[in-house]
Amino acid sequence: MTNKHQSSRLTSQHKKSQGVVGIFGAKAHIHDTSVGKVSDLVLKRLQADFPHLSFRYRTHIDKAEINQALQRMDQKLGNTLFVADSNIKPDGGIIEVKDRQNTWRVVLISEAKFQGKDIENIQNGKLVGKNSNKDLMLAGNAIERAHKNIAEFANYMLGESYFPYVLFLEGSNFLTRTITVKRPDGRKVTLDYTSGFLNRLDRLTAANYGMSINTNLCENKFIKNQGRMIMLQAASIFTPGNGKRWKETEMFRIMLDIAKTSVRVLGNDLLSTVTK
Amino acid sequence: MTNKHQSSRLTSQHKKSQGVVGIFGAKAHIHDTSVGKVSDLVLKRLQADFPHLSFRYRTHIDKAEINQALQRMDQKLGNTLFVADSNIKPDGGIIEVKDRQNTWRVVLISEAKFQGKDIENIQNGKLVGKNSNKDLMLAGNAIERAHKNIAEFANYMLGESYFPYVLFLEGSNFLTRTITVKRPDGRKVTLDYTSGFLNRLDRLTAANYGMSINTNLCENKFIKNQGRMIMLQAASIFTPGNGKRWKETEMFRIMLDIAKTSVRVLGNDLLSTVTK
Repeated sequence: MTNKHQSSRLTSQHKKSQGVVGIFGAKAHIHDTSVGKVSDLVLKRLQADFPHLSFRYRTHIDKAEINQALQRMDQKLGNTLFVADSNIKPDGGIIEVKDRQNTWRVVLISEAKFQGKDIENIQNGKLVGKNSNKDLMLAGNAIERAHKNIAEFANYMLGESYFPYVLFLEGSNFLTRTITVKRPDGRKVTLDYTSGFLNRLDRLTAANYGMSINTNLCENKFIKNQGRMIMLQAASIFTPGNGKRWKETEMFRIMLDIAKTSVRVLGNDLLSTVTK
Repeated sequence: MTNKHQSSRLTSQHKKSQGVVGIFGAKAHIHDTSVGKVSDLVLKRLQADFPHLSFRYRTHIDKAEINQALQRMDQKLGNTLFVADSNIKPDGGIIEVKDRQNTWRVVLISEAKFQGKDIENIQNGKLVGKNSNKDLMLAGNAIERAHKNIAEFANYMLGESYFPYVLFLEGSNFLTRTITVKRPDGRKVTLDYTSGFLNRLDRLTAANYGMSINTNLCENKFIKNQGRMIMLQAASIFTPGNGKRWKETEMFRIMLDIAKTSVRVLGNDLLSTVTK
């Protein structure tokens, strides 16, 4: 079998298994989603769809490993480490695939962040603020911390031409449309998605260069500037946008899509493993 | 005057004015440093050293401007804005220079962050923790938010080959050596800089790819990988490292050095302004 045929086979497998089937039962709309749990299902599905490839799951990566990856790119990089066991622990962990050199390559990194309890507060008739007389809570900025892990993994994958980092957002600080929520006493409260009091999506979009949200941005973008190519590693940022919570089936579909994009981009690097 | 001569002149002006002279008086060791105040002094010094160039100071930049800069690079970038007046406000503001096209180009962005009050607490004999019986406070992770502004300005300057972002750190969470602090009762407390309980420098070094701290990293690094050049925009991260606070004279020297690196890299782009 030639490399070209194998490559086509990877692509056709990729296309065949787009749907979400059989893994989730009738209670798929579980509200207490856990991205780590879904990540485990994605791992199982990848193993089923690519039986000739080896996948593994890791909860974290050591900062020392990131430094080693950076040093392979250039000796001046990756030289600082203050706390020996520093590590990076994305909520949903890391899925990797073994390439033909027996090196583990990342295919998926997932995080899920909740910020903004306004919808629940209103539904429960709970007023907030210093004097407990406001409908809405001034949004915080803790979500900005999400950039740290993104930067760490972007460094770890600096030598790759894809970046399979998915960030699931949830909560009233990440609306993409204006919604109305009813209080127990019948009064309706409007949550304006363009309000600086409420919306914190702008605090995250630097991580995808202001490209579309709810989009698989796994394949790196290369742009030309002053005769040079610049490589962009963009996080794929997802939010339901209407204040609803993530369904595990939706997260699964998105995560599988990104992981399969990674496998496709790695393509030739995986091939001799495929033929074993 | 040819471009070449003008370029040499810029370089020689740059070399001549390395030292910190005349601006700070005898009380230079002011402990309540303000990076914005120093930034203003740097602006004045740049105006004095480059009388033919126009400089300005800004407290913030609009996210809309960042989007415009991204769109100039590629139409797919910089397309999301949820809160119309979103802006980025580094503590020390932004210094810019006018180029020969009358476009303002950034020469310095400065931030100063304090985290970790252990030294002050010990010196004051204050015990901490839930039961007020500990010498040291478990370090927080709020500093990770610093990555957000770095990412925003890196995007704004994606088309440039320099990144004049300086981050001054201060506090017991940013030690680079182990120190001993004496309590009022004479007991000495050791602050181990390699302790994960205390040190948070590793949470920031993704922003400089693990290159040296306390180093001017203003000029972008270009590294070759798989036949491509990858551009690295690294923040310049500074910490006294011994628990001492920043002196304004030191901050001034570092900030001026970075700003002058920007002017030097911009070189030819500024020239016809110089000749006016």
